[in-house]
Amino acid sequence: MELSAKAKIRVSPKGATRLLARHPWVYKSDVQDGPPEPGLFPVYGPKGLLAWALWNPASEIAVRAFRFGEVRDAEAALLDNLRLALQRRKGALEQNPGGGYRLVHAEGDFLPALVLDAYAQHVVLQVGSAALEPLTEKLLEVLLETLPVQSVLAKNDQKSRALEGLPQGVRPLHGNVPDQVWVEEGPVRYRVDLREGQKTGAFLDQRDNRLRLDAFRGESALDVFSYHGSFALHLAANFSRVVAVDSSADALRRAQENAAANRLGLETREANAFEFLREQEKQRNLYDLIVLDPPAFAKSKRDLERAYAAYKEINLRAMKLLKPGGVLATASCSHHLSEPLFYEMLSDAAADAHKSLRVIEKRTQGWDHPILLNVPETFYLKFALLEVQQ
Amino acid sequence: MELSAKAKIRVSPKGATRLLARHPWVYKSDVQDGPPEPGLFPVYGPKGLLAWALWNPASEIAVRAFRFGEVRDAEAALLDNLRLALQRRKGALEQNPGGGYRLVHAEGDFLPALVLDAYAQHVVLQVGSAALEPLTEKLLEVLLETLPVQSVLAKNDQKSRALEGLPQGVRPLHGNVPDQVWVEEGPVRYRVDLREGQKTGAFLDQRDNRLRLDAFRGESALDVFSYHGSFALHLAANFSRVVAVDSSADALRRAQENAAANRLGLETREANAFEFLREQEKQRNLYDLIVLDPPAFAKSKRDLERAYAAYKEINLRAMKLLKPGGVLATASCSHHLSEPLFYEMLSDAAADAHKSLRVIEKRTQGWDHPILLNVPETFYLKFALLEVQQ
Repeated sequence: MELSAKAKIRVSPKGATRLLARHPWVYKSDVQDGPPEPGLFPVYGPKGLLAWALWNPASEIAVRAFRFGEVRDAEAALLDNLRLALQRRKGALEQNPGGGYRLVHAEGDFLPALVLDAYAQHVVLQVGSAALEPLTEKLLEVLLETLPVQSVLAKNDQKSRALEGLPQGVRPLHGNVPDQVWVEEGPVRYRVDLREGQKTGAFLDQRDNRLRLDAFRGESALDVFSYHGSFALHLAANFSRVVAVDSSADALRRAQENAAANRLGLETREANAFEFLREQEKQRNLYDLIVLDPPAFAKSKRDLERAYAAYKEINLRAMKLLKPGGVLATASCSHHLSEPLFYEMLSDAAADAHKSLRVIEKRTQGWDHPILLNVPETFYLKFALLEVQQ
Repeated sequence: MELSAKAKIRVSPKGATRLLARHPWVYKSDVQDGPPEPGLFPVYGPKGLLAWALWNPASEIAVRAFRFGEVRDAEAALLDNLRLALQRRKGALEQNPGGGYRLVHAEGDFLPALVLDAYAQHVVLQVGSAALEPLTEKLLEVLLETLPVQSVLAKNDQKSRALEGLPQGVRPLHGNVPDQVWVEEGPVRYRVDLREGQKTGAFLDQRDNRLRLDAFRGESALDVFSYHGSFALHLAANFSRVVAVDSSADALRRAQENAAANRLGLETREANAFEFLREQEKQRNLYDLIVLDPPAFAKSKRDLERAYAAYKEINLRAMKLLKPGGVLATASCSHHLSEPLFYEMLSDAAADAHKSLRVIEKRTQGWDHPILLNVPETFYLKFALLEVQQ
């Protein structure tokens, strides 16, 4: 009894205010007291219990709440959160077993530091919390109970695990994990390498935005920062000519493989996007649709001014390269460029390009990457569909 | 020739900058020179021709551009803009002839000061510019050529016409204009009084948001600020109990008529929304879905602080009245409460309500009320779908 009475976290009034506002994080500096070891513990403020959280005294974000208010069994509550997250995806997975979906989106699903992605029923799991790591087997059990799963790979190779005092490593947890799977996405399919690198190349957060582009038709389209050509594939069936532009020859080779597997024609251009757009403007090559899906130009707040200018430059140039009635599909995945700032940047670019643009749709990351109103960090992907009017 | 050489508008460098940035308005104070009479005229800046515009030297917004750059025939260009706007709606009207659609959304369709709404093929036209008024017959001709139309009513009863030196009046322009029509909207229909008052009660800008709510199911739902019950109708088929709340007994009578016409059950409560929500909280009545569709609390920038507090209060109370998993469908049609501020207000409310809310979707006015990136005034309706998580 004495031990359990001690096993609690006490946060400062500032930390308590955050949790009361339903933000799950309390920084180490706002923690007054807590157990020496990582684990699942109750969090108390000056006025009593606030939440149950993943706790790691060694981590900068020491408290990551997964349940606000009292619970009887913290572990059961955490597993309930997982069950709820998986249930939410179940319908989509049953309808489209060959598809790619994020099953768990960390804080967005009240499962901090946990990410699960399914690629044609092959699941990749990433754990980024020392408090969660010992529960891996139990998480796996709930996953296998709830969804049809062929294999599960623990891909714990994130560098950030070191901050939690966790080792890096990749190991199969269940079934026969293939190196590659083909993921179906509406009318197209693309290859995913499950074990390779930090990223699978699938960028599931853009799935619904890619599917949205299936509705557009035209002669010529550009996919700038194309990577494995996932947007280009969706355009290739409906545009006479599609050019995928990327600075990586490897990425473009993969884009060609994906196009071939879909029996679709695709041109590729290995180039710096900024230079390519400038060159197209000089040559007065106009397009019916342009996708801009750049990497995060703003990796930190300090980068913001330079990043804003870079986003504006590519958008301004793309606006000039569109025919009247042409469509710009433009994204930013940088959390630091907020949504209001993203649209301000686009307005700026339109003003400087002397183009009138209609907002067809303001979109975000796919539904399987939940956005919480109380947790701005869960919202990062902006995606605008704009049409050149005059 | 001399006359035509003189018939031009000259704007200041500031006015020119606005037009170059593709904003259609130039205020009287930024006009250097222009013809004495209203009409369609070219606009020149220090460096030459910028646009063609509706011109009224007596109006505060003296210049309203409808075409940027040179045109051979200004009137033909204006009518082309109308043709394009109507063509955009044609598919929807043909698919759903009994529906309600905005055919022309003024500046959003490059037809400043012109609004055309179709209710089951009966069109209501509003002209708010002295330069446009003489073209009414030609506009009508294009309308009748392009779309299947049963009748057209000129409903020029806006007070703002006085500022343009135009008389107020309502008169039929074509066909047999009925007093009432029934408009079909997905699974429901509602009555529109074409001649009555300033508003038809249809609020077409919310049509797609109302249709979106057809996807939700549950036991109990609230439609607060219900007016004629247009949201409530969409809920009544799928919720066991729906309560429409409005301060106007007349509006609620109409809501009941609409419900009866759809053979749907609907409870109505004549009440002040703020008091009603407070009372429900006291009685601990919880709901599965709540719609908040208030009138514009912020009618001017000066009102903003008070309006923000009022929006926050109703949203906070609604959040507290929702069951876990319950849905808040909340709108603001005030242009002065910007989209970023709207979401800040909702975050504030969620924090103070101690509720975690997932953003299901961020929506806006329907597609037939186009938003131009360069013209912030065209974007006014915010509509958030939020789900209570914990």
